[in-house]
Amino acid sequence: MNVLYIYAHQEPASFNAALKAVAVETFEKTGHNVKVSDLYAMHFKPVLDANDFMQRKKPEKLALFPEQINATKTGTFVADIMEEMDKVKWADLLIFQFPIYFTGMPAIMKGWLDRIFTAGFAFDPITQGVYENGLLKGKKVMMTITTGADENTYSEGGSHGDIHTLLKYITHCIFEYVGLEVLPSYIMFSVNSQSQEKGQQRLENYGEILKGL
Amino acid sequence: MNVLYIYAHQEPASFNAALKAVAVETFEKTGHNVKVSDLYAMHFKPVLDANDFMQRKKPEKLALFPEQINATKTGTFVADIMEEMDKVKWADLLIFQFPIYFTGMPAIMKGWLDRIFTAGFAFDPITQGVYENGLLKGKKVMMTITTGADENTYSEGGSHGDIHTLLKYITHCIFEYVGLEVLPSYIMFSVNSQSQEKGQQRLENYGEILKGL
Repeated sequence: MNVLYIYAHQEPASFNAALKAVAVETFEKTGHNVKVSDLYAMHFKPVLDANDFMQRKKPEKLALFPEQINATKTGTFVADIMEEMDKVKWADLLIFQFPIYFTGMPAIMKGWLDRIFTAGFAFDPITQGVYENGLLKGKKVMMTITTGADENTYSEGGSHGDIHTLLKYITHCIFEYVGLEVLPSYIMFSVNSQSQEKGQQRLENYGEILKGL
Repeated sequence: MNVLYIYAHQEPASFNAALKAVAVETFEKTGHNVKVSDLYAMHFKPVLDANDFMQRKKPEKLALFPEQINATKTGTFVADIMEEMDKVKWADLLIFQFPIYFTGMPAIMKGWLDRIFTAGFAFDPITQGVYENGLLKGKKVMMTITTGADENTYSEGGSHGDIHTLLKYITHCIFEYVGLEVLPSYIMFSVNSQSQEKGQQRLENYGEILKGL
């Protein structure tokens, strides 16, 4: 299996970095291929703008969907987009790992989705290539998430509400929208206050989960 | 009333740009003060990282909340953050206007939230300064959103689901979390396929809504 691991954390000494290391080691040990997009380390540009296109269909006014469809057909996205798209094409499984920022992805990772899951490549708004006809059909996706808040806060009746309901804008409206099969998210609550033992246990548990994929 | 208008669209000839112009004109005509943060035009940096801090409490390992709390106390965020924070302090009402990207904000706007609504400034994770004790209490917020998808798609029973439920991760978990009073979102569906008359009608309607605030 080919695994694309999209990772967003700034700090190489963080618990998130340790989780990423476990994932890479586990996949390699179990005979899978893994490529990592380490977004902060890559200085990934998260801003979708006119500079994403090497040539424009309509240079006088930017309309995203037509330009994205054209750039997909003609292979004229800028290099960093083409490289990430090649990794997506190669992958059977995509894993997005990030610390939750305001019940969502850090901007650098949202920007990866904005710029890589384009019209023409991941979905087609003209031919209704969405959901069961999404262009990334046949691939799987999973999120690995750490939170500062505890599990009660993110439960039905907690002050934020149920995290799985809140994250539907990602799991359903992004991942299922482009045709991906969504695996259960692996969510670790209260990571800022976890004991060393608890952290170690979570790292081992994460490895076990990934072995089972 | 002081209005901070946080705006994210790349194209000066877009319908979004016309909406923004209506907003500025309306607020000025009705005697309010308005400041615009035009994120693409400002080349706003959306990536929250170690460069956000002019001095570090713990230079050897980045932990965001302690550094943000420290930088708020000591006024040592980098200049672009300090400037946006000053605008937030000045404002009675914040309006976020954006085209929906995958049922959320474009990365450049999510990054504005990630970097400006920091621990210590917008909420306090230590003293439970969240929700009814959120640090931005007393201010109001509103979202002005355009979508490509139609209203049915974004309704209960539509393929995406009800947009107001989906956007709770913003309205509740971000805005209410930091103590803001959330006004009803102004959502315009199917903007890519609207007639010129429909667009004109929406611009006028938007002006009327804003006059009533």
